[in-house]
Amino acid sequence: MISVVILGAGNVATHLFKALNDAKKTSVIQCFNRKIDALNSYKNNVDITDDLNQLKEADIYILAVSDDAIASLSQQLPFENRLVVHTSGSVSVYDLDKKHKRGVLYPLQTFSKEVKMDFKNVPICIETVDKKSYPLLKELAVSIGSPTKRVNSDQRKVLHLAAVFVNNFTNQLYRIGHEITESEGAEFDLLKPLILESAKKIQDVSPYMAQTGPAKRNDKKTINKHLKILKNDQHKAIYKLLTTSIQHTHGSKKL
Amino acid sequence: MISVVILGAGNVATHLFKALNDAKKTSVIQCFNRKIDALNSYKNNVDITDDLNQLKEADIYILAVSDDAIASLSQQLPFENRLVVHTSGSVSVYDLDKKHKRGVLYPLQTFSKEVKMDFKNVPICIETVDKKSYPLLKELAVSIGSPTKRVNSDQRKVLHLAAVFVNNFTNQLYRIGHEITESEGAEFDLLKPLILESAKKIQDVSPYMAQTGPAKRNDKKTINKHLKILKNDQHKAIYKLLTTSIQHTHGSKKL
Ligand SMILES: NC(=O)c1ccc[n+]([C@@H]2O[C@H](COP(=O)([O-])OP(=O)(O)OC[C@H]3O[C@@H](n4cnc5c(N)ncnc54)[C@H](OP(=O)(O)O)[C@@H]3O)[C@@H](O)[C@H]2O)c1
Ligand SMILES: NC(=O)c1ccc[n+]([C@@H]2O[C@H](COP(=O)([O-])OP(=O)(O)OC[C@H]3O[C@@H](n4cnc5c(N)ncnc54)[C@H](OP(=O)(O)O)[C@@H]3O)[C@@H](O)[C@H]2O)c1
Repeated sequence: MISVVILGAGNVATHLFKALNDAKKTSVIQCFNRKIDALNSYKNNVDITDDLNQLKEADIYILAVSDDAIASLSQQLPFENRLVVHTSGSVSVYDLDKKHKRGVLYPLQTFSKEVKMDFKNVPICIETVDKKSYPLLKELAVSIGSPTKRVNSDQRKVLHLAAVFVNNFTNQLYRIGHEITESEGAEFDLLKPLILESAKKIQDVSPYMAQTGPAKRNDKKTINKHLKILKNDQHKAIYKLLTTSIQHTHGSKKL
Repeated sequence: MISVVILGAGNVATHLFKALNDAKKTSVIQCFNRKIDALNSYKNNVDITDDLNQLKEADIYILAVSDDAIASLSQQLPFENRLVVHTSGSVSVYDLDKKHKRGVLYPLQTFSKEVKMDFKNVPICIETVDKKSYPLLKELAVSIGSPTKRVNSDQRKVLHLAAVFVNNFTNQLYRIGHEITESEGAEFDLLKPLILESAKKIQDVSPYMAQTGPAKRNDKKTINKHLKILKNDQHKAIYKLLTTSIQHTHGSKKL
């Protein structure tokens, strides 16, 4: 049985708590948050605390706190030589205080407290400073059903950057789709099946092969029609830049 | 029984043929293509022709041909006063020759010949010049299980434009994710569950509510780290522009 203490009560901590608490091979023995109120809903299931001096001994301490809080929280931990990991895609593993055995468990997904998440859809990227800690972190990730991948710092950072492109930026394109349809009294809802299909398609086909549309075809008539419809200058700039990017990828002429 | 002749043998024609051929209330009585070879795989199921003068009498003629071919093909049809529709998101209904009853059946999806498509996931946007033709087109769309929506020309064009944002441009962001992970020897496959989840999330939550990440949080440290990792100037420009766009939407400061 792997014993775990979770620090933090946000999106990631909440989902990790549920998954680790349900798993057979792991046991969450305590949850910490600086504001104890955020832990109230767990208190019947696990020991909770807002006092670092009350932390129990465990195999793994997971710091699922804001990026900026990771370094200082790791310094404040009143013990050493135990395995302490954070869950961030962009923070260095060396930001953790060197008095600990150090690692990262980066769950490559988007979590919101309210939205259910099955960890079999959450690849966990594992990084450790000392090689010996790796098997334990892998066992923990496997226990909740996650695919795992050992990555180095550069790979983790680039995965986080890529996640910004495929999640945050993609979501902003959905938002622009929402804005421009509503401005003409058309329904954004009509686009939802297309959005889902676009994401499903690249599960089997590379994004290169999946591309279609006026930019790829270098269909100037349609591109110019579209630029005329767009009223917002920022939307126009995004249209032009992504059209050029597609043409660049697919070797047709520049705009 | 609604009788249909399909003109064209591309992505849309192929999927429409299968769906209409399987539906109980519709019957595809003939398929036309200027190159008859492309129709060879249908020839045991339906009458095929490459001669416009051999076209049979039908309730609806669907021109599922390239945007640029719609106007001239509609002129060449050797009859008048029958219902003729095209399937394009961006071509005007008035590009069809006015000797016909005219309409549009715009399927808001991305089709490839090889990828199966269930028409319940294909919203069909219907436009007609004369009101009387509308119920027949709606019945046809309903017969293959599609949700339908009556739209005007402006709405259809803006839906097509929005489809470019949420499908073509989104797919290009997936492509960039592919490029930057591969350049560091990280696996693009690790991003696939995130891509699917991002598309699933906005089935229930607005893109505005679904947004997360460094741009929305105005987390300058992470944004600058990311800009340093990006080597390709076009990727940098896209990162900056979409970050600014998110900040604009969510009211935080500009880059
Ligand atoms: N959300 C995601 O989709 C996602 C995905 C992958 C990785 N991550 C990473 O996971 C970590 C947590 O993200 P999250 O989304 O769960 O964050 P969150 O929901 O904003 O929660 C942040 C947590 O950090 C705590 N905290 C903030 N400042 C602190 C400080 N100075 N000292 C102690 N605790 C502090 C907060 O405590 P209070 O309740 O007291 O404020 C809260 O429990 C981050 O490193 C993030 O990069 C997030
Ligand atoms: N693909 C999609 O995802 C999608 C989605 C919604 C709407 N649409 C619209 O549906 C229509 C068809 O698209 P598609 O993707 O099916 O196209 P496609 O796969 O490229 O097929 C084009 C068809 O048009 C025929 N054609 C081209 N020029 C012609 C001409 N001058 N005279 C007669 N026939 C001609 C081609 O005949 P040959 O075989 O002889 O070349 C072929 O059968 C377009 O209006 C498109 O905007 C497409």
